[in-house]
Amino acid sequence: MISPAITRLIEALRCLPGVGPKSAQRMVFYLLQHAREQAKLLASSLDYAASNVTHCNRCRTFSERDICLLCNNPNRDQSLLCIVETPIDMLVLEQTGTYRGYYFVLMGKLSPLDGIGPEEIGINQLLERLEKEPIKEVVLATNPTVEGDTTAHYIAEKCKAVNISCTRIARGVPLGSELEYLDSRTLTQAFTHRALLAEACD
Amino acid sequence: MISPAITRLIEALRCLPGVGPKSAQRMVFYLLQHAREQAKLLASSLDYAASNVTHCNRCRTFSERDICLLCNNPNRDQSLLCIVETPIDMLVLEQTGTYRGYYFVLMGKLSPLDGIGPEEIGINQLLERLEKEPIKEVVLATNPTVEGDTTAHYIAEKCKAVNISCTRIARGVPLGSELEYLDSRTLTQAFTHRALLAEACD
Repeated sequence: MISPAITRLIEALRCLPGVGPKSAQRMVFYLLQHAREQAKLLASSLDYAASNVTHCNRCRTFSERDICLLCNNPNRDQSLLCIVETPIDMLVLEQTGTYRGYYFVLMGKLSPLDGIGPEEIGINQLLERLEKEPIKEVVLATNPTVEGDTTAHYIAEKCKAVNISCTRIARGVPLGSELEYLDSRTLTQAFTHRALLAEACD
Repeated sequence: MISPAITRLIEALRCLPGVGPKSAQRMVFYLLQHAREQAKLLASSLDYAASNVTHCNRCRTFSERDICLLCNNPNRDQSLLCIVETPIDMLVLEQTGTYRGYYFVLMGKLSPLDGIGPEEIGINQLLERLEKEPIKEVVLATNPTVEGDTTAHYIAEKCKAVNISCTRIARGVPLGSELEYLDSRTLTQAFTHRALLAEACD
């Protein structure tokens, strides 16, 4: 009994992650009542991105150009290559502002049960880069999960074969967390990889 | 350093209520990676609704036609008119499936400090309907807030003047709630309007 345009829009909004029927309703009525111009702008940005964003030919991240802005930036450190699973991982690492090298985005992780092997995550393309570019260190920033670790080990072997150093991001207790709420595997890792703060003299 | 199309889309998504920078990021990468077709559909539904949905000439709810589907339905009870503040209130009442009459949507509530008087909430249009249509009962379903109550009382006076019955939706403890967590004003109302379950014989 409500407007078909509204019903369709409520349904369509549910493609957004974390948006259920109630929040979709709330969004539609909010947009119609208070933010029509922004809604139109959102519609055009959405259509443009969905139609034009493909992958960077060099690092495989999302980009609307053949080579993304980051790969095109000559001021980054050519000797460093950071490997991440997804473009959003690359984005959050960039937001830390600590890394100055280039990236390679796997667009997934090794997962034989799902039919995702080395080819799907672009290992051949990665090996080509390791051969051609003056890379001295590969930083493995895949997720600290079973599949992320498997992928990291696989790539570490490949680096070893071509004699390039390979590091893995540190695992331990996240900043601001409380030990009480951390899982025991994280705590075990934090203990195992503990760092020396003061050494006793003999 | 990320694609301008992606930056624009992250920014545009923030017009949605409840969507902050982190969830906007997550939405964009999810759509690009897993749901491009749905994203395009969402873009077109959004643009269509923002451009074509106006107000029903009879009940003032959102509608892309001059008269909305509900007002056009001859099978509803002509003797009942329910008054709500917003189209979403009308929608949630419809979803209960208990009401069979027509609606009038104020598109707001009386709020003199914000410059919202009787004209802005369509009182003249409402009075016209009360005169012309065979309405026997007006159900006031404005929110149980100070402004919603003020609006309800104002309309109740108007109904009295034209000799039409006027009721207000019940206030009390919401179903499934726990008394422990309810505010004292709600509990006071629930006590004041308590209903008789068994009467003692003399």
